[in-house]
Amino acid sequence: MNAPAHLVHLMPDVLQRPVPAELMSSLQSRFGAQCSTALAVREQHGRDESVYDVPPPAAVVFAQSTQDVADAVKLAALYKVPVIPFGVGSSLEGHLLAVQGGISIDVSRMNQVLSINAEDLTVTVQPGVTRMGVNNAVKSEGLFFPIDPGADASIGGMTATRASGTNAVRYGTMRENVLALEVVTAQGEVIRTGTRARKSSAGYDLTRLMVGSEGTLGVITEVTLKLYPLPEAISAATCSFPTIEAAVRTVIQVIQLGVPIARCELIDANTVRMVNAHSKLGLREEHMLLMEFHGSPASVQEQAETVQEIASEFGGNAFQWATTPEERTRLWTARHNAYFAAIQSKPGCRAISTDTCVPISRLADCLLDSVAEADASGIPYFLVGHVGDGNFHFGYLIDPAIPEQRRVAEELNHQLVSRALSLEGTCTGEHGVGLHKMDFLLTEAGSGAVNMMRTIKRALDPDNILNPGKIFAL
Amino acid sequence: MNAPAHLVHLMPDVLQRPVPAELMSSLQSRFGAQCSTALAVREQHGRDESVYDVPPPAAVVFAQSTQDVADAVKLAALYKVPVIPFGVGSSLEGHLLAVQGGISIDVSRMNQVLSINAEDLTVTVQPGVTRMGVNNAVKSEGLFFPIDPGADASIGGMTATRASGTNAVRYGTMRENVLALEVVTAQGEVIRTGTRARKSSAGYDLTRLMVGSEGTLGVITEVTLKLYPLPEAISAATCSFPTIEAAVRTVIQVIQLGVPIARCELIDANTVRMVNAHSKLGLREEHMLLMEFHGSPASVQEQAETVQEIASEFGGNAFQWATTPEERTRLWTARHNAYFAAIQSKPGCRAISTDTCVPISRLADCLLDSVAEADASGIPYFLVGHVGDGNFHFGYLIDPAIPEQRRVAEELNHQLVSRALSLEGTCTGEHGVGLHKMDFLLTEAGSGAVNMMRTIKRALDPDNILNPGKIFAL
Repeated sequence: MNAPAHLVHLMPDVLQRPVPAELMSSLQSRFGAQCSTALAVREQHGRDESVYDVPPPAAVVFAQSTQDVADAVKLAALYKVPVIPFGVGSSLEGHLLAVQGGISIDVSRMNQVLSINAEDLTVTVQPGVTRMGVNNAVKSEGLFFPIDPGADASIGGMTATRASGTNAVRYGTMRENVLALEVVTAQGEVIRTGTRARKSSAGYDLTRLMVGSEGTLGVITEVTLKLYPLPEAISAATCSFPTIEAAVRTVIQVIQLGVPIARCELIDANTVRMVNAHSKLGLREEHMLLMEFHGSPASVQEQAETVQEIASEFGGNAFQWATTPEERTRLWTARHNAYFAAIQSKPGCRAISTDTCVPISRLADCLLDSVAEADASGIPYFLVGHVGDGNFHFGYLIDPAIPEQRRVAEELNHQLVSRALSLEGTCTGEHGVGLHKMDFLLTEAGSGAVNMMRTIKRALDPDNILNPGKIFAL
Repeated sequence: MNAPAHLVHLMPDVLQRPVPAELMSSLQSRFGAQCSTALAVREQHGRDESVYDVPPPAAVVFAQSTQDVADAVKLAALYKVPVIPFGVGSSLEGHLLAVQGGISIDVSRMNQVLSINAEDLTVTVQPGVTRMGVNNAVKSEGLFFPIDPGADASIGGMTATRASGTNAVRYGTMRENVLALEVVTAQGEVIRTGTRARKSSAGYDLTRLMVGSEGTLGVITEVTLKLYPLPEAISAATCSFPTIEAAVRTVIQVIQLGVPIARCELIDANTVRMVNAHSKLGLREEHMLLMEFHGSPASVQEQAETVQEIASEFGGNAFQWATTPEERTRLWTARHNAYFAAIQSKPGCRAISTDTCVPISRLADCLLDSVAEADASGIPYFLVGHVGDGNFHFGYLIDPAIPEQRRVAEELNHQLVSRALSLEGTCTGEHGVGLHKMDFLLTEAGSGAVNMMRTIKRALDPDNILNPGKIFAL
């Protein structure tokens, strides 16, 4: 199979490395039925939500313990064969694709909640536990884990991509919410980073180095997370706006006033239509902010009143409240299904997602110019955003059989990223670099910083076996 | 000069590296009057608040720009001579001592606030700006920078040690509040990490790798910080308790309930006495919690009522409020002066400070046993703590001329750290490792993690010129 033209561009030196028969037989004798070479299994582990088409890994090891992961890495290291960690496969950036061949290490069976320390507001889980799994486990303690990227992603994957999502405006991202890790190194050694203490100045912050390293510095085998008391009161609201600008100006002011809003999402009118069609909802088909307030009943009311006032100033109207858990769940499910609603609005299409994030004062400039460009291109799109953070996503809906559509979509993305970087923002707020943003990272961080990343990678993984070909070319 | 016995123990392979005359003359021709070899200047840069007695650096370069720092590092790198960044010299752990000789790079003249982005709640400063300097610059915008380690430390030093202090329970530490950095590498190259976007998944988190690296991975030349809107209402209160346990149990419950308390400090009765004597205050001489609440007037009142109820359950009494700025300033100045009050209570003494931090549920166990040990030892001490974080400091007051006192104090510290680690805590919540906690770090993090730190250090600074001999032995 030939790599598509854009892959050749992104990965000039990609070669599928050989996977020796000795390694395959060692894996099979160590792992038995936990190691699969069935094509369907390999293909399932060789695709994600990204647009790339790459040969699948040579085998999939279903790890059930840290020891399994360590042994798989050690065997692969003997033959300098790539290993690619796999959680639930919800990556949007090609993180789990075997671009240089190798072995997929599937940690989804490592799905135990190891300990809940309700008094300390911490939980320790295996990497295959999903965010909903964490929340189900801690709910009875009156606690919750706020990071919510939409998909029911694995905690290991969320850690590896520094995920965030709808609650980050108040609760931070995985960067702020991972306290400690267990990691298998490129040598197959098991190390621990961090402790359950809330803060520490004890040496280099290896925890934060691993968070967002996209599987290139270690395989995450255990994660200790911060939890939060379930708010006494929660209230969600939608508010419609005549223009995207009015919605964005409202958000900017809410953030600048320091209102501790828990969620603050933008959905453009077109996407509201797709969501209505997909989820059989009757949302007003205008640009919409979808918000949530957490706190004591008095504080929630105070926040809501402040936001309502600000919204009115900018022409916001039709404030609608969802105070029961059922109404709220319906609303947030609709928001989370925006991606699928959009995909289904155009059968056979694929979405090319953007992920820029800019300082809040630059949000209107960045967003409005990009909307104009997208409208002018004629490519259909959806637009949603964690706008409280300055982060938003276009999803350009392209027919994968029409190269010109992909070219135009990539061009739109390129323009958007250039704009975001010129506004002191980042090319990726939460999806990660993966395969898709390696050039953007170089522009954003500069060659000095990217060379420092490369130096760290080479030092910790001299044979480049940990998820090679991602983040930067070596 | 011979190193004292405990230094020999901590730094088995320390040698003062030679500083060639060629380097000295290059520095003098490049920097002129900005480079000093006067003994008084060198000695001032060769001492900090730690107990170590080490020869001073060979010269001090007063950098006035990033280019100055880069040039000084490049010159030192030519001769493989150590460079040691210096802010205001408030380190407690020997960070700035020239244990392997070399050149001190004083950045205190790099004290410009470069840009205030009030709309985005960010500020960019040079590293020699102090935390009070930041606050003075942003106050008129209605903003503040919450990280407050007590001393008016430099932002560069606070970044390098991952500092925190009294407000961390609500606002986080330097880990959470540094958005972006400019750093001079060991090769004298200038790189940038991070952007002004609130979140990013763009590659390795070099910002967090530099935060807390204690000058061993780069010299920080610019820092972009998060700011916060000045709270609409602020209220401070003291509450007295019959026992330390009662105070600590109150704190544990406040945190577990998720009360967003902004400051929550413990001062033991003995330290209150020292503070009264030093600051001419009439605080009730019992164990005391010193608290602060931030928010809307209604929220502040709600928080205060909740805390008062909890405190009453545990026998807390004599709640006293300080609502005017003057009263609050007086109270917090007294808290911040606890260290100096203690030192002055015993003329000629030095303080050996501990810095453990444990999960909040373990705080009572950790603290009470350590109080009993300290009482039994006969060594006078002060005890203060950012107890909302599980972090507290004993300061053992020793006569530096009596080796036995130092031995006993070090033994108390050792017992305390061992206890904290067994309770899943850390040996240092906010002071850093420096010279004093290298053995503790090894116990806490394990040789695997410390070896990973060493590998990163060797890769980024192969000649070991950046603040060598700190954090770990190479």
